Amino acid sequence: MIDHGKIMRLGGVGLGVSAALLATSGVAMAQDAVAFDTQVKFIFNTLNFLVMGFLVMWMAAGFSMLEAGLVRSKNVSMQLTKNIALYSIAGLMYWVVGYNLMYNGVDGGFFGTPGPVMLPDPAAEQAGLAKEGATMYAAASDWFFQMVFVATAASIVSGTLAERIKLWPFLIFVVVLTGILYPITGAWKWGGGWLDAMGFQDFAGSTLVHSVGGWAALAGAILLGPRLGKYGKDGSVHPIPGSNMALATLGTFILWLGWFGFNGGSQLAMDSAENVSAIARIFVNTNLAAAAGAITALILTQIIYGKVDITMVLNGALAGLVSITAEPLAPSVPLALFVGAVGGVIVVIFVPLLDKLKIDDVVGAIPVHLVAGIWGTIAVAFSNSDASFATQLVGIVAIGAFTFVASFIIWFILKMIMGIRVSEEEEMMGLDAAEIGVEAYPEFGKGSQAI
Amino acid sequence: MIDHGKIMRLGGVGLGVSAALLATSGVAMAQDAVAFDTQVKFIFNTLNFLVMGFLVMWMAAGFSMLEAGLVRSKNVSMQLTKNIALYSIAGLMYWVVGYNLMYNGVDGGFFGTPGPVMLPDPAAEQAGLAKEGATMYAAASDWFFQMVFVATAASIVSGTLAERIKLWPFLIFVVVLTGILYPITGAWKWGGGWLDAMGFQDFAGSTLVHSVGGWAALAGAILLGPRLGKYGKDGSVHPIPGSNMALATLGTFILWLGWFGFNGGSQLAMDSAENVSAIARIFVNTNLAAAAGAITALILTQIIYGKVDITMVLNGALAGLVSITAEPLAPSVPLALFVGAVGGVIVVIFVPLLDKLKIDDVVGAIPVHLVAGIWGTIAVAFSNSDASFATQLVGIVAIGAFTFVASFIIWFILKMIMGIRVSEEEEMMGLDAAEIGVEAYPEFGKGSQAI
Amino acid sequence: MIDHGKIMRLGGVGLGVSAALLATSGVAMAQDAVAFDTQVKFIFNTLNFLVMGFLVMWMAAGFSMLEAGLVRSKNVSMQLTKNIALYSIAGLMYWVVGYNLMYNGVDGGFFGTPGPVMLPDPAAEQAGLAKEGATMYAAASDWFFQMVFVATAASIVSGTLAERIKLWPFLIFVVVLTGILYPITGAWKWGGGWLDAMGFQDFAGSTLVHSVGGWAALAGAILLGPRLGKYGKDGSVHPIPGSNMALATLGTFILWLGWFGFNGGSQLAMDSAENVSAIARIFVNTNLAAAAGAITALILTQIIYGKVDITMVLNGALAGLVSITAEPLAPSVPLALFVGAVGGVIVVIFVPLLDKLKIDDVVGAIPVHLVAGIWGTIAVAFSNSDASFATQLVGIVAIGAFTFVASFIIWFILKMIMGIRVSEEEEMMGLDAAEIGVEAYPEFGKGSQAI
Repeated sequence: MIDHGKIMRLGGVGLGVSAALLATSGVAMAQDAVAFDTQVKFIFNTLNFLVMGFLVMWMAAGFSMLEAGLVRSKNVSMQLTKNIALYSIAGLMYWVVGYNLMYNGVDGGFFGTPGPVMLPDPAAEQAGLAKEGATMYAAASDWFFQMVFVATAASIVSGTLAERIKLWPFLIFVVVLTGILYPITGAWKWGGGWLDAMGFQDFAGSTLVHSVGGWAALAGAILLGPRLGKYGKDGSVHPIPGSNMALATLGTFILWLGWFGFNGGSQLAMDSAENVSAIARIFVNTNLAAAAGAITALILTQIIYGKVDITMVLNGALAGLVSITAEPLAPSVPLALFVGAVGGVIVVIFVPLLDKLKIDDVVGAIPVHLVAGIWGTIAVAFSNSDASFATQLVGIVAIGAFTFVASFIIWFILKMIMGIRVSEEEEMMGLDAAEIGVEAYPEFGKGSQAI
Repeated sequence: MIDHGKIMRLGGVGLGVSAALLATSGVAMAQDAVAFDTQVKFIFNTLNFLVMGFLVMWMAAGFSMLEAGLVRSKNVSMQLTKNIALYSIAGLMYWVVGYNLMYNGVDGGFFGTPGPVMLPDPAAEQAGLAKEGATMYAAASDWFFQMVFVATAASIVSGTLAERIKLWPFLIFVVVLTGILYPITGAWKWGGGWLDAMGFQDFAGSTLVHSVGGWAALAGAILLGPRLGKYGKDGSVHPIPGSNMALATLGTFILWLGWFGFNGGSQLAMDSAENVSAIARIFVNTNLAAAAGAITALILTQIIYGKVDITMVLNGALAGLVSITAEPLAPSVPLALFVGAVGGVIVVIFVPLLDKLKIDDVVGAIPVHLVAGIWGTIAVAFSNSDASFATQLVGIVAIGAFTFVASFIIWFILKMIMGIRVSEEEEMMGLDAAEIGVEAYPEFGKGSQAI
Repeated sequence: MIDHGKIMRLGGVGLGVSAALLATSGVAMAQDAVAFDTQVKFIFNTLNFLVMGFLVMWMAAGFSMLEAGLVRSKNVSMQLTKNIALYSIAGLMYWVVGYNLMYNGVDGGFFGTPGPVMLPDPAAEQAGLAKEGATMYAAASDWFFQMVFVATAASIVSGTLAERIKLWPFLIFVVVLTGILYPITGAWKWGGGWLDAMGFQDFAGSTLVHSVGGWAALAGAILLGPRLGKYGKDGSVHPIPGSNMALATLGTFILWLGWFGFNGGSQLAMDSAENVSAIARIFVNTNLAAAAGAITALILTQIIYGKVDITMVLNGALAGLVSITAEPLAPSVPLALFVGAVGGVIVVIFVPLLDKLKIDDVVGAIPVHLVAGIWGTIAVAFSNSDASFATQLVGIVAIGAFTFVASFIIWFILKMIMGIRVSEEEEMMGLDAAEIGVEAYPEFGKGSQAI
């Protein structure tokens, strides 16, 4: 392997003054075989996956901070551990089985042929561009971009089930979700399966990513039951405040930033003026849908409660983002604002509604990701002429039913085999003391004795 | 609309092994009409706006964390709410009126023709490139990049007025600032108005963004008055420590990172070796000016106070960044270091000076953004031969006078109509309890009862 | 200098509708002289340095948060101050002397000719591309990319020596490390010195960056001695918990994100399909090595201690990253997973081992950066046919011996002249009160009185 590192790092000598060592000599031969224009397209498309992909990867930190901020101090280390572990597991499982289960030869069917992903040699990949019909982006960059999406789905589950689920059953569920469940429903649409053949549209994953995470979370929440003390026997709801609004806000900003990659990168190409123009348009629609969601929740909570609820504002922004995710390109700005604003309304309505149903969703992930995800998928039909309400509903129901039922079964099996919930005593003590053994904030006030 | 998502996601199958589905077939026709070289330039310029733009967007999180760290615990949720709301409002207002007020047909005058911004269809935008004189970047990317700048100006106001301003009058001011005030003075220079015709120079906005924010903040601070207990009747100054230095430092690092986009992206083109070389040069000057500002404040506080004041070091870095913003390209590195170092000196001098004037600037935004912004704008004349000290002063005074007077009037009207300051009782209790209803750190020690 | 700002910002008027002002007219002449394809390569390579470089710059924030989270509250402001100061100093020193000491005319020897770095004029740099053998990237972007690496090395030292070292001797050491020590050993390999001539391989710096930081930290830790109360006279080890796991996790995620730039950018070119394919492959290997390190530490701590230790999981991820850094391109995914997993094992073994040796490494930087750095450098020989175990060992030993001895001498001199450790009383009180004068969390519980 040519050590480019050495050649170019040498090239830096003198900073451009008589820099006689040409950096690119090492690869000049390979370039001769493939037209430079073709290479430029390949570079742009790959760069899109890498840059937008690292923004989506960064969303893993966003979920971590959001969730760490919305749980009580005594469960923060657990929540952080779950998040860094689930991101790691998502990568491993999507490599070993998930990616090919989702993309390898689905061909109108229900899933592909699983197996580990082998990365091509860079020189061979470039040489292959000389052939007719070559893939116009680096295979590894595509895997990276798709992988960070599956991690997002797993993050959603983590938030809902916080503060009472055991670490290991949760992680085992993540193994199945990221290795099998998400790839299967992903195959139906993005893998070119039956839903795709039917014309179902989901640009960046309101359903394929966010609702999938939401359904899996809902199944778990039902089997797990609410946190101790959350719901009184008289039907009262006891609010359990999160421990750190600064972290929750930081998490939201991280997610907002990452979403430019999530939606923008899902254009999946940047090799023409049209494609990059589309990405720019997606950036604007995405940003304004989030803004509309946030401001809608801000105004509504002021009107309804007489005070602004910051957690609703944060979730309003996120619901705006989820809502526009199924179709961030086609809408005009006014439509994008409407789609996002409805996301904000959903949060304000569904967060208390879930409490009425005694479904304890610690961070509001079900309204934000599941309900707004459904809304966004339906709203595709307003602007994308290739979509119909009927087909969108088929996709929503099919993916929802599969994910909910499969998740429920897996949670149920885990519950039978090893239990999914900590003991009452451990829950009172906090999961950090029970399972992690490292308090998040040992010096801050009440610490693990809080609430 | 062609579903690129499907086509390219299919293209991923098999990871480069016989990937027969050509990703770009869908857009091949459109490309024929426009020379590929033209498209490549268009892609690079747009990519510059998108990547540098998301870095600037990230600065909204930086201001949030900086301000949340520098206020007391009892006002943290409020500060966070204001920041996510102002970023949302900035986007909405700049879309509905601000952008066109700033750029649409200013032509040497005072402002343009306001109105909502309509985003072009990507295919049409590409096709338009075949025409002589076409814009060489995606219109949506330009809007996005300009929008994140107006959000920055609003963030500056938020910090100065913290801990005693009411939420809603603040947000109404943000509506006016981002929709009208900032765009008007922006039109004078960047919109091609009278100051631009006169030869005023402000590369990335030491005056147009930072001083504008600073003047608006100063007007508000004067009308609002200092926090309770900040200044004794005997002329003494009572320091009110911020609640979280880790967040303040995180915010500073975020801003530092974002500033590469702020200044680098303001080259506004990346379609030639010269342009990207200029961006690289800007990165280096920007980084070193910040470093010089930080180290200067570090050494000065050690000498003056016998201890290092971390808040001064953070603000020193930021003042270095603001100072170099008006001209980050032309200076040699030694000049950039000097410009930044003076920024650090400004912080150390003006933070206590404002206290002598009993102007209570909670986070030091007036020294950092207004005073260093003025300094940076003057310093342009040291290296940019197109600038003269006289013209720079005209610009500084004109924009300062307009923004200060207009802001003062708006704050005054808001004060008359609805009041801009919370009651003494609410201020003691903390704004989180008074107006937000969600404590930021309910479990950490004294929480909202603190100080 | 042409004011691109004005021209292009005008170009935004009307958003693509009859945008008659051509943005690029100002640079059209210069472009004529240099082939557009050449410029495109130059742009891609420079963009690689800028984008990957800002990711690495962001790692400075990652180290700050990681370290702030792993020290006690009473030392947080100090840790933050040290981190922002060291990043600033790294830039200044690497500009004034370091870069040229490392790269300027090393030519098989031991170091180059030091001196400040002069940045070329962008127009001249573009014009120079017409010459045979021109450097194919902006000189300033190369400096920026190399500079953020030296800052990383300094960050490593900061963590190990936390909670008892004085501010100013630490900063003086950073001056020497970033201006002289790191550039000298850097010259041996990346500058084209004797180790490079011998065939030593270190793609992105497992040894040149991470081990160098680790050796410098080890020398300091030995001379400085452990924190008060860390080791009992009976040989017992007293764990001193970090104050904020949320910050520590945030820091780890920031570092993980930044590492895509660290390793990916070290391909040092993005001007061909092969190069960008290599970067993509590096992203995947880097991500999966980190994941393997995290999961390995997760499982091992569960098995060994019966609970998961989040600090070990975070350090496991980081050790996975350090391990793959010497060769992130050549390995197959299974090998990358193995390399990263061994990094996780190293953390679990060496953190307690250092305690047995009574070397007090506050954040675990020596296992993560030094030991895993050695491992990663050895592991290069598994996949890179240009590397041999013998040559790798020569490099490890030579660079280690030089850095350890030189660091030890400098620490020793600093100890003799001004002392490097705060008094016992100051250590008990906390460094924030002793040297900074600003508490990090004045309102949270015990604050500076803690522990």
